[in-house]
Amino acid sequence: MEHLDVPQFLGLLVVMLGAAKLFGAVAQRVGQPAVLGELVAGVVLGLSVMGLVDPRHDVLHLLAELGVVILLFEIGLETDLRQLVQVGGAATLVALVGVVLPFALGYAVCWGLGLAPLVAIVAGATLTATSVGITARVLADLQRLHEPESRIILGAAVIDDVIGLVILAVVSGLMQGQAVTVRGVLTTTTLAFGFLLGTLLVGRLVVPPLVRWVGRVDLPGTATMLAVMLAFGLAWLASVAGSAMIIGAFAAGLLLRETPQAHEMERGVVHLGHFFVPLFFVMVGAAVDVGVLNPLQRANRLTLLMGGWLIVAAVVGKFLAGYAPFWFTGNKKVIGVGMIPRGEVGLIFAQMGLAGGIFTPSLFSAVTLMIMVTTFVAPPLLKLLLPPRGRAPTPPEAEGIADLVTEP
Amino acid sequence: MEHLDVPQFLGLLVVMLGAAKLFGAVAQRVGQPAVLGELVAGVVLGLSVMGLVDPRHDVLHLLAELGVVILLFEIGLETDLRQLVQVGGAATLVALVGVVLPFALGYAVCWGLGLAPLVAIVAGATLTATSVGITARVLADLQRLHEPESRIILGAAVIDDVIGLVILAVVSGLMQGQAVTVRGVLTTTTLAFGFLLGTLLVGRLVVPPLVRWVGRVDLPGTATMLAVMLAFGLAWLASVAGSAMIIGAFAAGLLLRETPQAHEMERGVVHLGHFFVPLFFVMVGAAVDVGVLNPLQRANRLTLLMGGWLIVAAVVGKFLAGYAPFWFTGNKKVIGVGMIPRGEVGLIFAQMGLAGGIFTPSLFSAVTLMIMVTTFVAPPLLKLLLPPRGRAPTPPEAEGIADLVTEP
Repeated sequence: MEHLDVPQFLGLLVVMLGAAKLFGAVAQRVGQPAVLGELVAGVVLGLSVMGLVDPRHDVLHLLAELGVVILLFEIGLETDLRQLVQVGGAATLVALVGVVLPFALGYAVCWGLGLAPLVAIVAGATLTATSVGITARVLADLQRLHEPESRIILGAAVIDDVIGLVILAVVSGLMQGQAVTVRGVLTTTTLAFGFLLGTLLVGRLVVPPLVRWVGRVDLPGTATMLAVMLAFGLAWLASVAGSAMIIGAFAAGLLLRETPQAHEMERGVVHLGHFFVPLFFVMVGAAVDVGVLNPLQRANRLTLLMGGWLIVAAVVGKFLAGYAPFWFTGNKKVIGVGMIPRGEVGLIFAQMGLAGGIFTPSLFSAVTLMIMVTTFVAPPLLKLLLPPRGRAPTPPEAEGIADLVTEP
Repeated sequence: MEHLDVPQFLGLLVVMLGAAKLFGAVAQRVGQPAVLGELVAGVVLGLSVMGLVDPRHDVLHLLAELGVVILLFEIGLETDLRQLVQVGGAATLVALVGVVLPFALGYAVCWGLGLAPLVAIVAGATLTATSVGITARVLADLQRLHEPESRIILGAAVIDDVIGLVILAVVSGLMQGQAVTVRGVLTTTTLAFGFLLGTLLVGRLVVPPLVRWVGRVDLPGTATMLAVMLAFGLAWLASVAGSAMIIGAFAAGLLLRETPQAHEMERGVVHLGHFFVPLFFVMVGAAVDVGVLNPLQRANRLTLLMGGWLIVAAVVGKFLAGYAPFWFTGNKKVIGVGMIPRGEVGLIFAQMGLAGGIFTPSLFSAVTLMIMVTTFVAPPLLKLLLPPRGRAPTPPEAEGIADLVTEP
């Protein structure tokens, strides 16, 4: 499927969206979050089962990335910056512990299996970054985005994505045989965090007059398109500044939430999300190779053993991180479980390790297995810990996200 | 710009959408349809001016095609099939005359300029197919989609797109040195028209129960996504069946209009349209090479001469076609002007001619010039003939398209 002509592309989109909706509906029918169904749809359509969706395909990859950018923008539109800052201490601690502990446990597992230090470092790095997309989507589906636990999870996931970037820079330096300097690490860290702070500070001055000015244009969909352009623009800027795209998109949402047009923008962007977001989860699912799960194949046994230990390290490390903010009186289990899913960043590390010749195919598969299991296990666990609520008790500001769940 | 990474892609989308909105707003401010501004935005961003947007780029091309598919689907959702059938005779006559006359005039122009018969046939073919997208968008912007003239234009444009496909098949056969058989032409014609009729007949039985069944799924955005999937699915099927994608998308709109969820679907799809449709018009504009317009360059003079004559043939041929349904008492000028813009199909012929060595680069540029001028001249002329109306006198079923014009 190297080159797609237009009709083939349309057909493929129909299959991907159709499967996402179908499996999502089935997941919901059996009491699971819809996103789990979308992931399963991806596995079924992916290379290892039906072979219809190639996760490395250029165009599909770009569209899926638009999906995760739009998702994080929607989450930002739903997130009150003041409330996020209120849980800032707890979120930072969860993020730090949630990076250090899984890394240490992963390193220990690899050391125990007799792997070289560099291999152990790269494998440990794959365990560090939470996939904020999965958890955020589940929390949105369950209408729990506004609770303190959810804010801590989101804050921590955003922070550990930034930390993940720093680790990425360090590890790719190590793999190319460069020496790690304190100055280099500090520069990367400052850039990554500085972007978020700088954007929020400058944005609070620039965005409201921009929205007012553009609001005078009498063209259809102007507010929605301004929102999309700010989300894409800040995502691009974040990447150029050495930060992560989704952090730019999240910041765009935080900034636009304060404008009077926020609700109008949300109503429009939600529809774009219905189209692009499932494509992202289908692509995540399509990257899963179910072949490594077959224990009857002798070659898979080592993979399954390594994968099993990595899963233990991944789950225990993040779950315990949820208990790090000891002063927090809410449900610490929810925080720990919410941090469990690993996704894109972990896969980037794993692919770097494989391409650099540091990972054997077997270790690569073990890491993929870890990412897959942590991704699939978190939604049902979260659903178990957070029974869905009726619409009545949601606060008024939660109205927008309700559009994500029930078409108005 | 062969390969785009994700941040570059986001940046490019921001530039394209931003320029489309900016030039669209300026066009509207000076009393022109917004689509004219979007075309100009494309010219400015295109290869011959700023070089930012390459119209041949894979991913952008696919997204632009989603735009035209969504646009024709929206137009279908706005079109009452019964009213379309009422003007069927007039539309068919306009389409037939609007194919034969420009073809004959174009052939005559080429013959007069001393070109070979095969060259004259291919050049004549570039004059045949109206770009329904441009006219439909202008009519929608002016809130005139429901008038008899508009229905005749839309019907005729759809029919002459199908005729265009038949001519395409015949001409590409001729260019490969094949003999043209009556049987071959009949098969192509039957396939192309049969798809539209067959889809509408089968669809009227299948679509309503499908919509009812899917309506039971309690997932966000299900109605909108069903609409998108049916539009994309029928566009794909149309292409597989040897018809044109936009005809499948148009048929999907006609079919869904009859379901109770039509308004809900429209509200959702309009937002996708705000994103994808301007990308299409920017890409059309980006294909324009303004270099051929410079008369100071000696090489351009022959191009401008040929282009000038082709423009006369193109405008006169389609304008007179508007007078073909002699019994029609409405404004025949509007019909004639509405049929003038040429677009995608003309460009396909021209590129075929260039690639096959039948067109010289100079003739290719002349044809491009003709497509460019007819595309740019029609929106302001239509606007002149059809002053915009207030919202008050629009019939209730026009409410949906009003969303295209003013955000609710």
